[in-house]
Amino acid sequence: MAGPPDQHVSLDPYVERYAARTLGMRASEIRALFAVANRPEVVSLAGGMPFTAALPLDSVGDMVGTLLHTAGAAALQYTGGQGDPVLREQIVAVMALEGITASPDDVVVTVGSQQALDLVARVFLDPGDVVLAEAPSYVGALGTFASAQAEVVHVQMDADGLIPAALREALAALTAQGKQPKLLYTVPNYHNPAGTSLAVERRDEILAIAQGAGVLVLEDNPYGLLGFDEEPRQALRGRSSDGIIYLGTFSKTFSPGLRVGWALAPHGVREKLVLASEAQILCPPTFSGAVVSAYLRTQPWLEQVKVFRELYRERRDATLEALAQHFPAGATWTHPTGGFYVWVTLPEGLDSKAMLPRAVHARVAYVPGTGFYSDGQGRRHLRLSYCYPEPARIREGVRRLAAVLEEETELRSVFGPGASRQSVALRRGQAQTPAPDLA
Amino acid sequence: MAGPPDQHVSLDPYVERYAARTLGMRASEIRALFAVANRPEVVSLAGGMPFTAALPLDSVGDMVGTLLHTAGAAALQYTGGQGDPVLREQIVAVMALEGITASPDDVVVTVGSQQALDLVARVFLDPGDVVLAEAPSYVGALGTFASAQAEVVHVQMDADGLIPAALREALAALTAQGKQPKLLYTVPNYHNPAGTSLAVERRDEILAIAQGAGVLVLEDNPYGLLGFDEEPRQALRGRSSDGIIYLGTFSKTFSPGLRVGWALAPHGVREKLVLASEAQILCPPTFSGAVVSAYLRTQPWLEQVKVFRELYRERRDATLEALAQHFPAGATWTHPTGGFYVWVTLPEGLDSKAMLPRAVHARVAYVPGTGFYSDGQGRRHLRLSYCYPEPARIREGVRRLAAVLEEETELRSVFGPGASRQSVALRRGQAQTPAPDLA
Repeated sequence: MAGPPDQHVSLDPYVERYAARTLGMRASEIRALFAVANRPEVVSLAGGMPFTAALPLDSVGDMVGTLLHTAGAAALQYTGGQGDPVLREQIVAVMALEGITASPDDVVVTVGSQQALDLVARVFLDPGDVVLAEAPSYVGALGTFASAQAEVVHVQMDADGLIPAALREALAALTAQGKQPKLLYTVPNYHNPAGTSLAVERRDEILAIAQGAGVLVLEDNPYGLLGFDEEPRQALRGRSSDGIIYLGTFSKTFSPGLRVGWALAPHGVREKLVLASEAQILCPPTFSGAVVSAYLRTQPWLEQVKVFRELYRERRDATLEALAQHFPAGATWTHPTGGFYVWVTLPEGLDSKAMLPRAVHARVAYVPGTGFYSDGQGRRHLRLSYCYPEPARIREGVRRLAAVLEEETELRSVFGPGASRQSVALRRGQAQTPAPDLA
Repeated sequence: MAGPPDQHVSLDPYVERYAARTLGMRASEIRALFAVANRPEVVSLAGGMPFTAALPLDSVGDMVGTLLHTAGAAALQYTGGQGDPVLREQIVAVMALEGITASPDDVVVTVGSQQALDLVARVFLDPGDVVLAEAPSYVGALGTFASAQAEVVHVQMDADGLIPAALREALAALTAQGKQPKLLYTVPNYHNPAGTSLAVERRDEILAIAQGAGVLVLEDNPYGLLGFDEEPRQALRGRSSDGIIYLGTFSKTFSPGLRVGWALAPHGVREKLVLASEAQILCPPTFSGAVVSAYLRTQPWLEQVKVFRELYRERRDATLEALAQHFPAGATWTHPTGGFYVWVTLPEGLDSKAMLPRAVHARVAYVPGTGFYSDGQGRRHLRLSYCYPEPARIREGVRRLAAVLEEETELRSVFGPGASRQSVALRRGQAQTPAPDLA
């Protein structure tokens, strides 16, 4: 039996029968570490889990009980592959809050927006196709693109999001190589992991560049309603309906465990997405859809979004204050105005991936920056999530992490630049499917 | 702009940008017809929808209310990509009812068993790979294999299920062509659409043939607990754990709208399935999983399965009696001892696909046999589902269908063999993705 390409001997007797795409599927190297990071004594600033304990659980319980008593047979039955028509009308109303005009007929209900991402990849991407994505980009999207055997080309961002000139340059470089990218994947609001948003004055320009180059824009907007100090910015899809597929979700405004997201797509594309979804899951979860639909209809859901915004704003403040107080000179970080994440750049010479085992040992966890690039960049970066821990825990976590940074810096100044890597147990350099964003 | 291969002019401006696999995705020709067939005046013997109205909806409503009151924050949160460990233990206990010994660690919770099918296809199938499947086979599986650009080779069945000699012949023919099939897809119990079961005395032989040929067995068992007159037969996976991936679901024993199914796979394969699922949906629906888990723990679920078995047995009886009473000489049909379906063979010369519009006009619907083959076979066959309509409606539906058959036969005897096709509005001969099994 031949070993896999890395010459690592496999004990899996099925390895010779896998599809080509499967050979690239590896568990993330940091997955095992996160099993440890989930212990209660560790402050996890790693996972992007919404704080569902802030939901009005008693009201939701009563609401779902009533749903089953009055319409249980239908809520527990199959639904159409595109999702319930009433729910799709409600989704159109939700998107209107971000300036989008659309027809329910162009909406496909999906298993979270992750499935929508995967369906877009399935419908558009052949092996070797090029996808443009921000640098850094959402780990779950990179996993989906890797699974589609696509090539991701990262485009530079700054504090105002994607840089139009960088997008033009990336396109020109690809054209020079004879490559036509299929998609521009972008998270314009409260970016995961960068914490930044695409400036309003850049939005039309980015769209025009993509449209001019014949590149479909894949706008992923899970956090758009979770701004702290401002009204929602108009979505790219609100500015144009040409060549844009928009992805939304109830995971951050209501519940991720229901797995209800959606895609809004041009009509012909929508039809393909539905066919692809039927081949994948037959139909989206009827019961979850019915729960979301009842929640939007009977509960003060926008008031609850305000509760979440207040809660996350407080946690963002705790994070930024603690960073300012404890982090060393030479470290910088973004200042999110919404969403779940702060993106940290470490002082030169430090390696966030090499440092992670020591951080977990010091009872604090984060996601190393490397997970957010498909090309091995990101060792000087890390993502902190402030959505789940209480503010006091966040402060304690940042304090612990600052102590680890200090120790790393000391090691480095005593033993030289290699020191912080020598003690690392993790192997490097393997292609890998990034872990999903649950750690 | 180039048209798609059939020279049919496309109005879809994105058609040039789709992946190769997408060009084969077409909506089923009979989909539009089924929109009509869903009208209340039409007796639908088409869809495989479980009769969820027979569930104890008030108890389930109270149970889910309690779940949200006591553990709502966790039930509405993300879960791991493999699914909840406690649910996986319960799934192992459910499989033990069909003679399977397994570890919860080898179970992957999926969005219905359809997603499990799709994950297996994704992990194992490259374009052009060969899958063996029964003749006929489940329409949803054929859709998934088509979406994976695999070639399906059908293997003959009789009243005792897959014929071992036919499987040997198919393998020999493929070997002669230099082809090594990747999977044998089989529904051994209460087959969809055939209504037959694999005889107990054939099971070890079928397994031995597949194992000897290095073909993974994909055992799909949604109906195994829904036998009418017998104890559950031992699953293939109960007889051997070597080279078998087993798929199960709660869609037929509890609720399809929750979309909770699973795959049980050899350890290395299980790991790949989890990685593929994470790239596809991040994690399965936590809330659905929690509802199933609570249902298994707190409700008399096996008593409820008995209620379903009695109900479906009565409907099967109504179907078989009405067929015997009304159907013409020359028509034959299977005699299911469980599950949802009767498979009808029409008198020679009749065409179930051509006849469907007239049947719907006569207010009865069925699924033409062609949907259950990937190679255009099946025009003399049709599938009747007895799971959803009440017995009196079933009798009326079969009576209406018999009248249509009579009329077709008359037309044919007056105008010759072509007559029953000339009046048909449906276009023929296009490759298509079969519609999912919801009509």
